[in-house]
This record gives sequence, structure tokens and C-alpha cells, in this order.
Amino acid sequence: MASPSRQAVNFAAPRGFATAFKADCKETFFPDDPFHEMKHEKPLNKLKKTIQYFIPLFEWLPNYNLRLFRYDLLAGITITSLAIPQGISYAKLANIPPIYGLYSSFIPPFVYSIFGSSKHLAVGTVAACSLLLSETVGAKASPQDDPTLYLHLIFTATFFTGIFQTALGFLRLGILVDFLSHSTITGFMGGTAIIICLQQLKGMLGLIHFTTHTDVVSVLGAVFRHRNEWRWESAVVGIIFLAFLQFTRYLRQKRPKLFWVSAIAPMVVVVVGCIFAFFAHAEKHGIQIVGELKKGLNPPSIQYLNFDPQYLPVTVRAGLITGLIAMAEGIAIGRSFAIMKSEQTDGNKEMIAFGFMNIIGSFTSCYLTTGPFSKTAVNFNAGCRTAMSNVVMGFCMMLTLLFLAPLFRYTPLVALSAIIMSAMLGLINYDEMIHLFKVDKFDFVICMAAFLGVSFISMDVGLMLSVGLALLRALLYVARPAACKLGKIPNSSLYRDTEQYPGSTPIQGVLVLQLGSPIYFANSTYIRERVLRYIKEEQGVSDSKTDIIEHLLLDLSGVSSIDMTGIETFLELRRILDSKGIKLSIVNPRIEVLEKLTLAKFTDAIGKESFFLSIEDAVQNCRFSLHSSKTTMEEP
Amino acid sequence: MASPSRQAVNFAAPRGFATAFKADCKETFFPDDPFHEMKHEKPLNKLKKTIQYFIPLFEWLPNYNLRLFRYDLLAGITITSLAIPQGISYAKLANIPPIYGLYSSFIPPFVYSIFGSSKHLAVGTVAACSLLLSETVGAKASPQDDPTLYLHLIFTATFFTGIFQTALGFLRLGILVDFLSHSTITGFMGGTAIIICLQQLKGMLGLIHFTTHTDVVSVLGAVFRHRNEWRWESAVVGIIFLAFLQFTRYLRQKRPKLFWVSAIAPMVVVVVGCIFAFFAHAEKHGIQIVGELKKGLNPPSIQYLNFDPQYLPVTVRAGLITGLIAMAEGIAIGRSFAIMKSEQTDGNKEMIAFGFMNIIGSFTSCYLTTGPFSKTAVNFNAGCRTAMSNVVMGFCMMLTLLFLAPLFRYTPLVALSAIIMSAMLGLINYDEMIHLFKVDKFDFVICMAAFLGVSFISMDVGLMLSVGLALLRALLYVARPAACKLGKIPNSSLYRDTEQYPGSTPIQGVLVLQLGSPIYFANSTYIRERVLRYIKEEQGVSDSKTDIIEHLLLDLSGVSSIDMTGIETFLELRRILDSKGIKLSIVNPRIEVLEKLTLAKFTDAIGKESFFLSIEDAVQNCRFSLHSSKTTMEEP
Repeated sequence: MASPSRQAVNFAAPRGFATAFKADCKETFFPDDPFHEMKHEKPLNKLKKTIQYFIPLFEWLPNYNLRLFRYDLLAGITITSLAIPQGISYAKLANIPPIYGLYSSFIPPFVYSIFGSSKHLAVGTVAACSLLLSETVGAKASPQDDPTLYLHLIFTATFFTGIFQTALGFLRLGILVDFLSHSTITGFMGGTAIIICLQQLKGMLGLIHFTTHTDVVSVLGAVFRHRNEWRWESAVVGIIFLAFLQFTRYLRQKRPKLFWVSAIAPMVVVVVGCIFAFFAHAEKHGIQIVGELKKGLNPPSIQYLNFDPQYLPVTVRAGLITGLIAMAEGIAIGRSFAIMKSEQTDGNKEMIAFGFMNIIGSFTSCYLTTGPFSKTAVNFNAGCRTAMSNVVMGFCMMLTLLFLAPLFRYTPLVALSAIIMSAMLGLINYDEMIHLFKVDKFDFVICMAAFLGVSFISMDVGLMLSVGLALLRALLYVARPAACKLGKIPNSSLYRDTEQYPGSTPIQGVLVLQLGSPIYFANSTYIRERVLRYIKEEQGVSDSKTDIIEHLLLDLSGVSSIDMTGIETFLELRRILDSKGIKLSIVNPRIEVLEKLTLAKFTDAIGKESFFLSIEDAVQNCRFSLHSSKTTMEEP
Repeated sequence: MASPSRQAVNFAAPRGFATAFKADCKETFFPDDPFHEMKHEKPLNKLKKTIQYFIPLFEWLPNYNLRLFRYDLLAGITITSLAIPQGISYAKLANIPPIYGLYSSFIPPFVYSIFGSSKHLAVGTVAACSLLLSETVGAKASPQDDPTLYLHLIFTATFFTGIFQTALGFLRLGILVDFLSHSTITGFMGGTAIIICLQQLKGMLGLIHFTTHTDVVSVLGAVFRHRNEWRWESAVVGIIFLAFLQFTRYLRQKRPKLFWVSAIAPMVVVVVGCIFAFFAHAEKHGIQIVGELKKGLNPPSIQYLNFDPQYLPVTVRAGLITGLIAMAEGIAIGRSFAIMKSEQTDGNKEMIAFGFMNIIGSFTSCYLTTGPFSKTAVNFNAGCRTAMSNVVMGFCMMLTLLFLAPLFRYTPLVALSAIIMSAMLGLINYDEMIHLFKVDKFDFVICMAAFLGVSFISMDVGLMLSVGLALLRALLYVARPAACKLGKIPNSSLYRDTEQYPGSTPIQGVLVLQLGSPIYFANSTYIRERVLRYIKEEQGVSDSKTDIIEHLLLDLSGVSSIDMTGIETFLELRRILDSKGIKLSIVNPRIEVLEKLTLAKFTDAIGKESFFLSIEDAVQNCRFSLHSSKTTMEEP
């Protein structure tokens, strides 16, 4: 029954500070250990691998061939047909002239194809960030009253986004993105989709006056206040376009092979809209059109970056928030598609690629770009093989800008609204929200905080509210770690939670507790209270003197670290237990914990003989001492 | 070698939301389960116990007798002799007339003796909070230019402190105090002691002009700028007093029996100082005295509470910060002494007692009080038995206020400075700081942030800096949980960290990983990366095809909870592993984790047969499937 030989706890000398610190830093910033493979290479190979590591282009280009290019060409042309209508639409959402949306799909794809590590990501502008930019920057400079200043501030914000993303990438702070939880993103996307759809009512109903606020109440208020401006012609055309787009989406869900129908549908809507507007003289019937689009490539915009201290706070703030969201979206999307092909993307490399893309973009009349979901999904489905599809898209956009741009001047605004609305309706993830509600109520609250916060207050407030709640939860996890009482499972040497395994039996006179998570300042008081309460409960059950607790075993297998306050608590706990005549033993401390306990002389205080490698060992030992004490008591 | 019968994981139906939520709330707010004992009582007894619970006076008073009173009387008189000089000194530190320091030792002790749960705590004002109050409130209203307004704001801040403390107590939010770590308090106390000592240079050198800032640079600057005001007479008297006080402290350390010498030393200094000043006409020699002290008890001050919106932010802020610090100090001190006698104090009850003390105090011309360390230690050493010693002190203070107050008008300021300096020098805990440096470098940084922040910037900035760092650390713990690879310890069924126990051997074809701490949004990306890296490392070691990993066992014993992002990560991990041909098994999930996994249908996705109760079981199972697959491979 007893294990034949007792296994000893390893009391090796604690590692030095430098060793432990280096190990900690590595775990914190390089969890993926990127240079692992290069360790055993020759210097020349090492240099080559390092260059390949930082510039992924050199990794895939040498092996590139015509067969792969055929796939990428097709995918590139398909995403261009999506890039044109989306570029124009989202630029309208950001309150800047539509041509800048097209510019933004020309330069950034080339940059990404050099530095990006994902094979499937398609570069472009995104609706949520476009609206967030206009909301944040628009609060300081009006896009109507001073469009030039407003445009320059948008470029500046894009520049800051780029700097921020690059810096995070080089500092390997991908960890920041980790703090945007799944629930936060679901809620944020849903809320954003709602407010963007409502924004489109302006285009759909052909309104002239509108509000600059984005929350549901203001927008609906503005829509109904300007009832006299509603144009039925515009609404009818819009509903027809929207119905067509939604039908193609439905088709894609039913027959995944027909994905290309929904991929080119927005382009179809734009072309049909243009032809209709041109021949029907739509402007005269209250259907507004995009208006003049100049021929020609991106003009430089580096001279327009505005670092005036008056506007600095707003541009920096807009840059940081949109940068973080764009990054989170881009990285998450790149990752999801890579997983489907069992490949991996590197979050930190992606950040650097996005950063360069936005810095260079802000110099060349582009605004914020990242990897939008819809475009990437189309790229993936169209069979792209490498980042070359982005290069193809860049060339197609160049041709469009050089020759075709003026043709799009007749695009009706209502067509753009229909395209945006259709894209946004797909982003409200009802199923996920219901799933969250069923599985985890707190996650649901975090999700709803983002959803309702974005819908009813503003995008950044909603986001911060949700992240704040998630952090609060993280701190509560830490402040109230799970502890449980263990019992022996019959016919085995296993000890498990008595609540979870009602069949397990406690050992007479011995209380076995399992502590989870790190022990430190935020939870040490709780742990002390909780342990003492377990003892009180245990002794309360039976008042007979024979069933009193004589030994407390603390199983520290799940305790990954401890700080000074935690150690003080252990010392305090031991004093209290001593005064109650209970002996404390420690089971299976992990290396970091044992090091600290040794350094703080706790090991010496309670004696190395009170440390055990397994609960079974400890219980055997207790049984021995229990038995002997009983014999002594019986002797007189 | 194999366990005879496989123990099954308990897949009971998940608990309902209400049950789980109630259990969580109980763990969060009632970790000490205060009503546990009352459950099985009769209604009348229940009422009695409830009253006794909320008003501890009724618990000890019925059993009180003359024998206990003898001890408390002695202790009460001893602490009064400390209360008078400290009251006057700290009131000077708070920049309010000295008489209010005496008032503050009259009413609050009575309140505490009714509601307080500690037997040893002696009520009084504290240096750190006095200075912090004057620093915060002084920024808005000058104590020199408008002393009446300043005094009223101090009362108002005290009122807010009381409201805040009471509210926290009733809401059972003692959890907030947990976020002030041991290291933060050590650093904060040390830094405060330094700046308070420097403040005393004004009194010691007899300066007239001084600065309102508290940081080291400003104070030393002010001292040296006013070199012409230095008075050697004052300095000589001060140094003599300080030397005497330090000598009595030294005596106490050498001979603990003589504690009463150091306890009455401040009173001796005051009395000697008064006599000296009276006969030597000290004022004419540049030694300033306290000045007029009116006879009489506390006048009401409820009508002076100032809720003017102009001053509200500063009084609320001062109230919250000083309230939190005072509470942390008082609770920690009460607890330390209770432990020495193997008794317990209740943090939440203490908060309510402190809260009532300060609310009633603010109505009766008292300012912020708590349980100061020096007074409580003296009370404990003088042999107090119950909170009656506070009542005795209250009566003694009443007599002092009624008859003796005017006698203290000759107290030289330099004597008060010597008393404060001597008290503060004992609060700089060098040993603890060195200990922190040795055991935990990050804790040392947290401590130094408070120490240097308080010394060189300001008290609240230093405190927030330190708490912020501590929280950052808590989040990092959570974001980068420890994971380790397990190996089998020879001749046992134990699996332990291979780094910690180099003797343990890995199992061919099976990788066993132990995860610690909760798995959720902040660490799920990291966990995925880390697990994949372990697999890469494992397969990198040997390139031979035979040694490939076929099974991954995740030991979740130490994982206390999981959220949606964590579950998504597990699903993602499983997809990646599937594509690599590695089978995932879960070992010993805890009840909360298993519930969530079941609800999210993860259990169904990987199959219940992939869950094991112990690593040994899982390894046996893997070995079986490994063996069978090898046989199949060898067959052709």
C-alpha cells in the first residue's frame, strides 16, 4: 500500500538572479523562440536565415514559380474587384475623398508582400477603423469646414499608427494584443457593425444633413429629424442592391464553390450603379453620386504630416487606438486562415509589416490599412498561394488609378451604402453571443459591455469599458484563486477534489488542501482565511476530540510562483497552526516556488523533512506520527 | 507497474449558473464565512450572535471583570502618556492647531471600543496620513492664509474617509486592502519616514520660512536657502531630546522588560521641555513654543463640513487615499498583534469600526484616526486585555482636556520634532529591504518605487506608482503562466518537472506538459505558442522518425479556471495537433474547467475517452496505442 521508497524533494541551490531573469524575459517576449533554429548554423547561413527571418519575401521568392503565380494572379484580380468598391466606400466612412481609398490599396500591398509573414492576408482599409478615425479626428477638426486640415490629420494619425505598430513589433510586445479577448472582439465587432449600418441610412435615404455622433440614439434621432429629406428613389435602389448582395452571400453559404459570385458582387453593384446613374441622370432624382475622381497615382503626402501641438493629442490617440484594433484584427485573421492550412504566422513580424505599411502609406496619401476579414477570406477562397496576390492587386490598382478612376465618378452613394451594410451584417455574430451566454456569463458581460458601449456611447469608450472589465476579471481570478480539499480515491494513490469526486475519502486527522495559481500580495490574505476556514469547518463537523486535525498538507503542484507577501503569509499561517497544534507540510513545490522559499529561509523554518514529493508520501509520514502520538496518549 | 483499474474522470452535469455564481460570490466576499457558526442556532440565539457579531462590545463586556480591568487601566494610562505628545506633534504635521490632536484621542477611542474587533489596537492619529492630508488639502487651501477653511476641509476629508471605510466594510471589500502588498507598504513607510524626518528640520533648526512641498529636493533646498534663520540653541536642545529618545528605544531593544521607559519617554520630553521653556524663557532664545491651548472638550464640528463643489474633488481624493492607507495600516497592525496571541481580527469589521470612528470624529472636531503602530505596540506590551484600554485612554484624555491642556502651552516645538523624528527613524525597515533584494528582485523594485516615489515626487504618486507596478506584475503572472515538461520519476508513478528533477525520464513518443494558473484571454496565445514550441523542441532533438511525438498529455491539475478565449485556444491547438498527427489528451481537469469544457462541447469534440484522471493512466493508454501503431507499421 505504501510506496516502497520515499522520493525526495530536490533542494538544489536556487538559480542565480541573472539566469532566472534571462529565462523570465525569454518567456515573456520570445515565447515562440524564433532564433532556435539558427543556433547551430554557420555564420553565413546564420546571416541568410536572419535576413529571411526579418524579410519573409526572401524566404518564399527564391522558390517561386509560374505554377504558383497562376493561382496568385487569379486571386489578385478577384480581390481587386472587391478593393475598388470597398476602398471608395470606406473612404466615405472616414469622411475623406473617395480617391484616397483607392490610393490605400496601391502602395500598402507592395510593402506587405515584402515584410508580411502571412500567405493569405489581403491588405486593405477596414470599416471599423475608418469610422473610428473619423470619429476621433472629427472631434477636433471638422471634415466639412476644413477638409484639408482634416485630411492631413488623418495622414498624421496613420503615421502614428505605423510608428506604434512597428515599435510594438520590435519590442516584441505582441502581449498587448493578448489583452483584447475573444469576447471583447466579438462585442466590439457587433457594436461597430450596428453603428456602421445605421450610418448608411444617410446614403440609403439620400439625406443631406446628418450628425457627427455615431451612437444609436443620435443617429436615429438625426434620421427621423430630417424626415423631410428622405428620398424614396434612393431607398428603392438601395434596397434592390442590398437584396442582391445578401442573396450572393446566401449563395456562398449554401454552395461554397460559388464564393466568387459574392466576391465580385460589390463590383457588379458599382458597375451597374454607374451605368444606371449615367443613363438615368440619377442626380436629378435625388440619388447622389461620388463625383470627380482624378486620374493618376498617389501624390506624396509626407509634407502634410501635421505635428502641431494643438492637434498632437488627438492624432496620437487616434493612432494608438486604431493601431491596436487594426493590429488585433489583422493578426487574428491572418492566424485563423494560417491554421486552416496548418501553417503559422508570427504576430510580432505581422506588427512590423503593418507598421511599415502604415508609415510608408502616410507618406504616399494612404490612410490606415490592415488585413480586413472579407478581403482575406476572398483571397483565401480564390486560392492564393503567397503574398504575390497582394502584388497583383497593387498592379491592378495602379492600372485602375492610371486609366479607369474617372469612370467611377457616377457610382451612386446608395450603392456604396448597400455594399457597406451587406458587409457589416455579416459581422454581427449572434451565435457566438448566445454561445458565450450559455458557457460563461462573465464573458457574455464583457462582450455586451463592448457591444452596448460601442452602440450607445462611442467606439473607444465601449472598447475600454470591455477591456477594463476583462482586466478586472483577470485580477479577480488572481485575487480569489481556487482552493479545494482533497480526498483519497479508493484503490489508488490518487488524491482528488472531494467536491468533484464524492467517492474520495478524507484521511483521519489529516487535511489535504490543493492551492492553485500564483500566491502573492493580491491573494495571500484570502488564502490564509480560506485555509483557516477549511480547518474550522473540518473541526466543526465532529466535536469529538479523536477526530481533530493534526496535520495540514498543502499541495503546491499548481502554484507557479510566490512573492514576499505570499511567503510572509505562509510564515504567519505556520505560527497560527503551531498555536493550534497542527503540523504544516508542503507537497511538491515547483522550482520557482521552492527557490523563493529557500531564499527566504522558510524551508529552514519548517524543516526540510516537512517537504514531500507526493501527497501519498506525506500522508504515510503523517500516519506514522499520528499513530505514534496515539500510542503515547494511550500509554499512561 | 500499471494501475490495476483505470479511474474515470467524473463527468457530472455542470452546476447551474445560480449555484456557481452564488459559490463564486461567497468566495469573493465572504472567504471567512462569518455566519457559519450561526446556522444551527435557535432564532433568539441567532439574533444575539448577530448583534454580537456586528457589535463586538457585547461579546467581551458580559465576561469583563475587575482582574482584567487592572491590566487595561495600566495599559490605558501608559498609552495616554504617549497620546498627548503624539497628538500635539502630528497635528502640527497636519498644519492644524495642536488642540485638535488631543481632541482626536478623546472621542474615537470610545467609538472603537464599541465596534472594534481587535483587543490590542490603540486608537490615535498617524504621521503618514497627517502629512498626506496636509499635502493634498494644502494644495487647494493654504493653512497659513485661510486656516479656518483649511481646518474645515480637513474635517470634510475625514468625513469622506469615514464614509469610504464604512462602505467598504459593509460591501465586504476588504479585498481592496489586499492590493497594497507587503513590499509597497515597506517602501511607502520608509519613504514617508524620510520625508517626515526632513520636515522636522524646520522645528529642529527653528526655521520660520519653509516650503509646502514634501519631496526631499524641495525640503533640503528650503532648509539651505534659509541658512540665516538657523538657531543653534534650538538645534542643541533638539539633539539632546532626540539622543534621549533614541537611547530609550535602544534600551527597549536590549531589555524588552523596560518597554515602559521608551513608552513614557515622549511624555518626559514634553514635560521637561515645558519646564525648561517656562523657566529659561526659551522663546527669547529662538526656541518656539506651541502656544495657547484652550481648556474644554471637543466642540461640535458637524456644521463646518464643507461640501462646496469647488473643494469636493480635493476632499474626496484626500479622504479616499488617506482612508485606504489608514485602513491598511490599522488592519495590518491589529492582525500582527492578534497573531502573536493566536487570536483573529476581522478585516471587514475593523473597516466598519474605523469608518464609524472617523465619521463621528469629523462631527466632533477630530481628524483622521486609525491604529498607529507605536501606540498599539505600547498597548500590547503594557498588557492590555480588551478594548477597555481605549476607554481608559479616552477618560484620561478627557481629564487632560478639562484640566491640564493649558499647561502644555510651553511645549517647545523642537521637543515635538524630536519625538516625531525618533518615531519615524524606527519605521525605515532596512533589513526588510535587503531581504526583499535577496529574495525577490521585482518585489524590491515595487518597494523602491514607493520609497523613491514618496521621497522625491509626492506621497500619493509614490503609492500609485508602486501599486501600478504590483498590478502590472500580477497581470504578467497571469499573461505568462509557468508551463513545464514532466518526466517519470524512476520506481514510482510520479511525474515531475524534468528541469527540477533531472533524474526523471521522458516517455518515448509521449509529451507530458503541466500548465499552471487560469487559462484565459490574456495568456491563451502564449500557451498555444509555448505548447507548440515544446513539440518543436522535442522533435528537433532527434531527427530520427522513430522518436516522433504521437501523444500530447496536458496536465490541468493546476488550472483553476478557463474562459471562452481559452477554450477557443484549446480547439485551435487540437486542430494544429491533428494536422501534425499528434493526439491530445487531458489529464485531471478541475471541476470549474471541466464544466466549461463540457458546456462548450469541447469534451464531445475530443471525446470523453481522451480525459484521464492521472498521468499514469493516460501514459498507459498511450503506450497501448503506440505499441499497436508500431506493430501495424512493422507488419508490411
